[in-house]
Amino acid sequence: MIDEIKKAADETSGEIIRLRRDFHKYPELGFTEFRTASLIARELRSAGCEIKIGREIMDPGSMIGLPPADALQREFDRALAQGADTEFLGPMRGGFTAVAAVIKNGDGPVTAFRVDTDALPIQERSNESHPPAAKGFASVNSGIMHACGHDAHTAAGLGAAKILMRLRDKIRGTVKIIFQPAEELICGAWPVVKSGFLDDVSRIFTIHFYSLWESGLLSCTREKGHFAISKFDAKFTGAQAHAGSRPEAGRDALTAAANAVLNLNAIPRHSDGATRVNVGRLTAGPGRNIICDEAVMELETRGETTALNDYMVDHAMRILKASADMRGCGLEITPMGFAPGGSGDPDFSSEIIDYAARTRVLNSSWRQRNCGSEDFHHMLDHVRKRGGKGAALSVGAGPGGKPHSPDFDINEEVLKDTAAFVSALIIERLNMVSA
Amino acid sequence: MIDEIKKAADETSGEIIRLRRDFHKYPELGFTEFRTASLIARELRSAGCEIKIGREIMDPGSMIGLPPADALQREFDRALAQGADTEFLGPMRGGFTAVAAVIKNGDGPVTAFRVDTDALPIQERSNESHPPAAKGFASVNSGIMHACGHDAHTAAGLGAAKILMRLRDKIRGTVKIIFQPAEELICGAWPVVKSGFLDDVSRIFTIHFYSLWESGLLSCTREKGHFAISKFDAKFTGAQAHAGSRPEAGRDALTAAANAVLNLNAIPRHSDGATRVNVGRLTAGPGRNIICDEAVMELETRGETTALNDYMVDHAMRILKASADMRGCGLEITPMGFAPGGSGDPDFSSEIIDYAARTRVLNSSWRQRNCGSEDFHHMLDHVRKRGGKGAALSVGAGPGGKPHSPDFDINEEVLKDTAAFVSALIIERLNMVSA
Amino acid sequence: MIDEIKKAADETSGEIIRLRRDFHKYPELGFTEFRTASLIARELRSAGCEIKIGREIMDPGSMIGLPPADALQREFDRALAQGADTEFLGPMRGGFTAVAAVIKNGDGPVTAFRVDTDALPIQERSNESHPPAAKGFASVNSGIMHACGHDAHTAAGLGAAKILMRLRDKIRGTVKIIFQPAEELICGAWPVVKSGFLDDVSRIFTIHFYSLWESGLLSCTREKGHFAISKFDAKFTGAQAHAGSRPEAGRDALTAAANAVLNLNAIPRHSDGATRVNVGRLTAGPGRNIICDEAVMELETRGETTALNDYMVDHAMRILKASADMRGCGLEITPMGFAPGGSGDPDFSSEIIDYAARTRVLNSSWRQRNCGSEDFHHMLDHVRKRGGKGAALSVGAGPGGKPHSPDFDINEEVLKDTAAFVSALIIERLNMVSA
Amino acid sequence: MIDEIKKAADETSGEIIRLRRDFHKYPELGFTEFRTASLIARELRSAGCEIKIGREIMDPGSMIGLPPADALQREFDRALAQGADTEFLGPMRGGFTAVAAVIKNGDGPVTAFRVDTDALPIQERSNESHPPAAKGFASVNSGIMHACGHDAHTAAGLGAAKILMRLRDKIRGTVKIIFQPAEELICGAWPVVKSGFLDDVSRIFTIHFYSLWESGLLSCTREKGHFAISKFDAKFTGAQAHAGSRPEAGRDALTAAANAVLNLNAIPRHSDGATRVNVGRLTAGPGRNIICDEAVMELETRGETTALNDYMVDHAMRILKASADMRGCGLEITPMGFAPGGSGDPDFSSEIIDYAARTRVLNSSWRQRNCGSEDFHHMLDHVRKRGGKGAALSVGAGPGGKPHSPDFDINEEVLKDTAAFVSALIIERLNMVSA
Repeated sequence: MIDEIKKAADETSGEIIRLRRDFHKYPELGFTEFRTASLIARELRSAGCEIKIGREIMDPGSMIGLPPADALQREFDRALAQGADTEFLGPMRGGFTAVAAVIKNGDGPVTAFRVDTDALPIQERSNESHPPAAKGFASVNSGIMHACGHDAHTAAGLGAAKILMRLRDKIRGTVKIIFQPAEELICGAWPVVKSGFLDDVSRIFTIHFYSLWESGLLSCTREKGHFAISKFDAKFTGAQAHAGSRPEAGRDALTAAANAVLNLNAIPRHSDGATRVNVGRLTAGPGRNIICDEAVMELETRGETTALNDYMVDHAMRILKASADMRGCGLEITPMGFAPGGSGDPDFSSEIIDYAARTRVLNSSWRQRNCGSEDFHHMLDHVRKRGGKGAALSVGAGPGGKPHSPDFDINEEVLKDTAAFVSALIIERLNMVSA
Repeated sequence: MIDEIKKAADETSGEIIRLRRDFHKYPELGFTEFRTASLIARELRSAGCEIKIGREIMDPGSMIGLPPADALQREFDRALAQGADTEFLGPMRGGFTAVAAVIKNGDGPVTAFRVDTDALPIQERSNESHPPAAKGFASVNSGIMHACGHDAHTAAGLGAAKILMRLRDKIRGTVKIIFQPAEELICGAWPVVKSGFLDDVSRIFTIHFYSLWESGLLSCTREKGHFAISKFDAKFTGAQAHAGSRPEAGRDALTAAANAVLNLNAIPRHSDGATRVNVGRLTAGPGRNIICDEAVMELETRGETTALNDYMVDHAMRILKASADMRGCGLEITPMGFAPGGSGDPDFSSEIIDYAARTRVLNSSWRQRNCGSEDFHHMLDHVRKRGGKGAALSVGAGPGGKPHSPDFDINEEVLKDTAAFVSALIIERLNMVSA
Repeated sequence: MIDEIKKAADETSGEIIRLRRDFHKYPELGFTEFRTASLIARELRSAGCEIKIGREIMDPGSMIGLPPADALQREFDRALAQGADTEFLGPMRGGFTAVAAVIKNGDGPVTAFRVDTDALPIQERSNESHPPAAKGFASVNSGIMHACGHDAHTAAGLGAAKILMRLRDKIRGTVKIIFQPAEELICGAWPVVKSGFLDDVSRIFTIHFYSLWESGLLSCTREKGHFAISKFDAKFTGAQAHAGSRPEAGRDALTAAANAVLNLNAIPRHSDGATRVNVGRLTAGPGRNIICDEAVMELETRGETTALNDYMVDHAMRILKASADMRGCGLEITPMGFAPGGSGDPDFSSEIIDYAARTRVLNSSWRQRNCGSEDFHHMLDHVRKRGGKGAALSVGAGPGGKPHSPDFDINEEVLKDTAAFVSALIIERLNMVSA
Repeated sequence: MIDEIKKAADETSGEIIRLRRDFHKYPELGFTEFRTASLIARELRSAGCEIKIGREIMDPGSMIGLPPADALQREFDRALAQGADTEFLGPMRGGFTAVAAVIKNGDGPVTAFRVDTDALPIQERSNESHPPAAKGFASVNSGIMHACGHDAHTAAGLGAAKILMRLRDKIRGTVKIIFQPAEELICGAWPVVKSGFLDDVSRIFTIHFYSLWESGLLSCTREKGHFAISKFDAKFTGAQAHAGSRPEAGRDALTAAANAVLNLNAIPRHSDGATRVNVGRLTAGPGRNIICDEAVMELETRGETTALNDYMVDHAMRILKASADMRGCGLEITPMGFAPGGSGDPDFSSEIIDYAARTRVLNSSWRQRNCGSEDFHHMLDHVRKRGGKGAALSVGAGPGGKPHSPDFDINEEVLKDTAAFVSALIIERLNMVSA
């Protein structure tokens, strides 16, 4: 069986790489993956998959972190200009850019494989030493770049879909391949969860390529995995006054915000584990001689566990409120994304690692924690609550530049192997036809 | 008439100086002037005055800033040991240490003259260069000193009472001489006002000796007078926890207080005039390795006008509350004294200055504002609201050490002249028998 | 004489109003008054005045607050496109936009009259209820507006120049009319002072129109005049780090700035008089999940006197430095303008008020202080140090909208009267030919 | 062999308990263990040990955290009055209260066993439900209590010395039993290390009784052990001024301290592990109406490793300095104790645990980290640097009240077993006579 899968992977390899380069050249930010998602849908349709788009798998009431309406429209128009497939675009309007393939063969367990599709607000390196530039597929969208490999995740996901469709009769039950938007915003997984699309899933997993590891190395986090994270915007609203003639008439939103910055950093440490807080941006005030009437900050909290992050959020909310009160200001808090913390289920992760060791499609290993965050954990927590299990896989794809840097790149060789491994894991293990 | 008054003053001069030295030797803090007040009462009784004591002229519901019960008892016992007159002590128990003389001769206007009687928590200089030490009447009460001249005010008030009793038939109407406690606490005037004792008063004035001015110089403030003031104690209550093993379990009252200190100092300035705020004392925490569960601060606000002080108090209350909320702490605020701001009525003050210029008992002048505070303004505001007028007189009594210093002293020559001037002002002007 | 002057003013009135409207339509910000200044020079030249431009009366080493080079070039180009007179533009390149007329008639005292020429970054109201819009001379430069009357000051200054040139033989000595740039930045007067152009001046005065006072009311400040002011930009420089994975590697410029904001507001009040401080704008941070490496604030201090402002500046510098040190950050402070405080000389101001009362060209009055600031005081202080005197005149020009608002306007009737009054004051008093 | 040791332990058991109760009744704080240390010396001498006292094993230049001279004298006098042995007291004057036994039998390895001797500033419970009170050996020194079991450590150490002296010929090499003062201050180990007394030691260990664990349970920390800790007092010095009349003349030490409190709590978290900081006490200011001229704070930092604590100390020092600069204040920092972090060497700890499992004198187990601190790690680090190894043993001694509480007590049964185990470990393993 494994050889048949490898052969299918070899045959789709050129196509997968072509797709990855196309996505790379036209990167799109969270909830504006209009072009990307429409082409995913086209590929899945042409492979014969049943597809789900937009509201079918995203709950409209659970969407946060959406760009403003004018930005959504502008990016929609760009997608059209850059070759989006109009057959699938309609239902994506307004940011509903999730797509999924459903591959079914009779009754049996339901497995979900999730990849993410969005890019980052980074300007890609343009000189010849950067392979995408040298080969002509560097980003043409100014200030936007696939600097975390989601183009490759998407391509690998499509590769797996194509292989699985070829071998559909070897599958028992259902496979759902989810192309999730807005992972970088930590906002895309939640509406998928709330849509109910995962309610029947008993096993779920995702992959992430790492440019700094040796190519082909497969790992699962153990014990300590991703940090839980919450993101907020906070707007303090005061009252303007001339700083020379009527200082008493002002309510100084900047001083309110300054109190918040100091006190957020001073949230007590927790003996249960690591916590984080950061106010990464603050914009305040109309001008030098005016008491500031509006200060807007972007902040985030993290915790080694969801409980630790909840602790940070509780303190942060109280501090923001008290800081506004301190200077008689109003306060508006906008949630901008959240994700639980955690790692895959140890036994399920072990099963995958062991399977990798046996098949040798990828090389297995274990690693410890990652202070980064992943909104896949919304999906995993949901599946777990219903009795299922899951794992977060990392696949080495180096050598390449650092993640989230203008130099980021991956070794395209791993695309094919990853598609093969995912397919084999499903066919030979998760959705195995009983012998 | 003026010559007759001067003669009476000359004859009582020795007695006034003896009394001043006696009060100086046995100084008592606010609301514990038991010995002082009992001897005032004895002197007034022996001069033949009608007297009022304690609750007769102090409203029990309006007393704030009282010492703790054990301190009241301890000071009461000391007064007994130091020769208080037991005939008058009973009604003073618990801090009711105001005394007043009422001198009446038929119908006519009611004039009030107020002096203050309390001392300061200062250790008096004991070397021979300090006149009270050289002459043997330096304080015998450790850590307490008449360092602001209230002993002399009291003696001058008694001198005036004796002179006026001698010349009672030259008076038309009523003179009330009020010996007020707890002026340094800014707490003694308010209960006298609320007792109703001033309700029929149409003219009120007070005197204050200044050791740094030339002896005999009389002045009234003009335009800008005393600052309004409010005093508070604020207690922040958190929760202890071991700082190493359970930092998350604490609620840090010290950090709450630190926020308050910074933000109180940062109350916006006011374009209507001068404001002040100070946290003068803070005591917090059980020990180095414990999250602090209690922080107690002593603070005050001031304003050039009562409205400006109200502005500061409003901000301070909001900031204290928000600072407690900031760290999840409780807050208890205890008012510790307040006084309105202001100065005497310009026309009434002018009248006094002009009268002084004419009689030459004291030398008249004008002066501008004083950033200090005076709870006499409670009395003055009350009289004004009922259509009356008042003035705050200052009398030079130098050369002497600085007020509120261990070297403070006054020139005793001014006692007699002040008693004479006050008496003359009443007899020849305020309660003049129409010609 | 006064009638002859009034006649001359009447005859130039239409021209003055035309000029004011032209300046109003093409407003220019501080140091970019290229079009305005070139037209001033053309008018002065055509009136026959000797003129001084740019570096002749501005010391290059004393210029602060200049816009960036690209903005200077952009505004220069716009001035050209909007009809600047190229005959005079050359020496103004780089922000040297001061112009002066020198009117001389033999030996005698040197008098200086200063007006200012720059506009404000405010978007003018465009509806018909706003007279400049209704009459077609509202600003065509987006986001820039003459909202403080400097267009009218300039026109009145040109009017006075024209009248004085007509009557030059009635003048004894020299009159310098200075058209100063960048008053709103508090940056234009200082380079004029440092150029030496005022070294021989014995009397100096300026005018300011007030839209909220009755038209024609002339006043001089008395006792308390303008506040001294200092403006700074402060840049805190830290180090970026990922807030989740390496918080210890960051140096948080935003937290440094937050400390500064709180502590600047908490500079102790001063018993000598009013002080002010404001951080009116803060921009910090690259993004939510990055420790902030750069925070830029715009601040200002003020004081009722120059000494009080110096006190505030001393504290502010120390606080900014300590705040940077607190979080291991670097600090760069850029002075953005300063002006001494004060008011005109009382006797010289009295002389002007009395002269106004006599001539009745304007209606005289007195007024108290103004919490605003004026860099004219650089000029006045300089003249005073050399034995001269000066005054700051205000002229009612209402009814009109509030200064520094999109509705601001003035009654153009006062232009002619002001030009006449200034001319008469010079001819009949300051540079009078002895009878 | 083990049976012989157990028998010796049984025979000394009564004496050990008597000694523990005596130490418990007369508790002494760090560096004032005069009575305790003199009786330790007497016991060791009577057992025949070579003894070392004071400066022989404490480097005078390395002592910090000493009580003031008058307190040292007062406690010395109390020790005399409470039965200290004058034969040994002389060299202890000034706080040199370390004592050691040296037990030598020919050449061989040098092993050190360390116990601590000081008490805590806690008032012991006096009611009958508290065993020491019921049995008549509760503390007679008001406000001082052995609430962490050091009385028992000392008694167990003496028990081991007595047993080892009985069986001296079974020992090869040297055993040093160190009775260290001032462990609660984290100040007593450092001067012993610096004296050179441990330079020849190749194995070192200590014990600590835990009242909340089952009696007889022996454990060693593994991986994560004690936190490193540093303790400081910081004094901010400003300038007094009257808050109403001259606020500008003050330099506010309380506001400086408030800045420090906020910023210390806001030291960035570290991705390498747990850190702590606490300002546990602050005392500031002479009174409400005076700008505060002195604020004294007690603070501590901790880190999961010595490097993490160093990171906290670096930040703390910079923040304290910047906070003083912020308000123009002076700063004096006094180190009050420090200890490295860590745990025993894993292999040496394993050896001990395994030995315990074999002998069954105590019941062995493993446990994870402890957020508390221990200055034993100075000794362990020193021995390690010279090639040696060590371990920190904990012995269950419950049921008893919580450590550092007025109810703390231990089960005295463990004293004998601990003395036996320590002796056996030395005789049968660490200083075993080769078979």
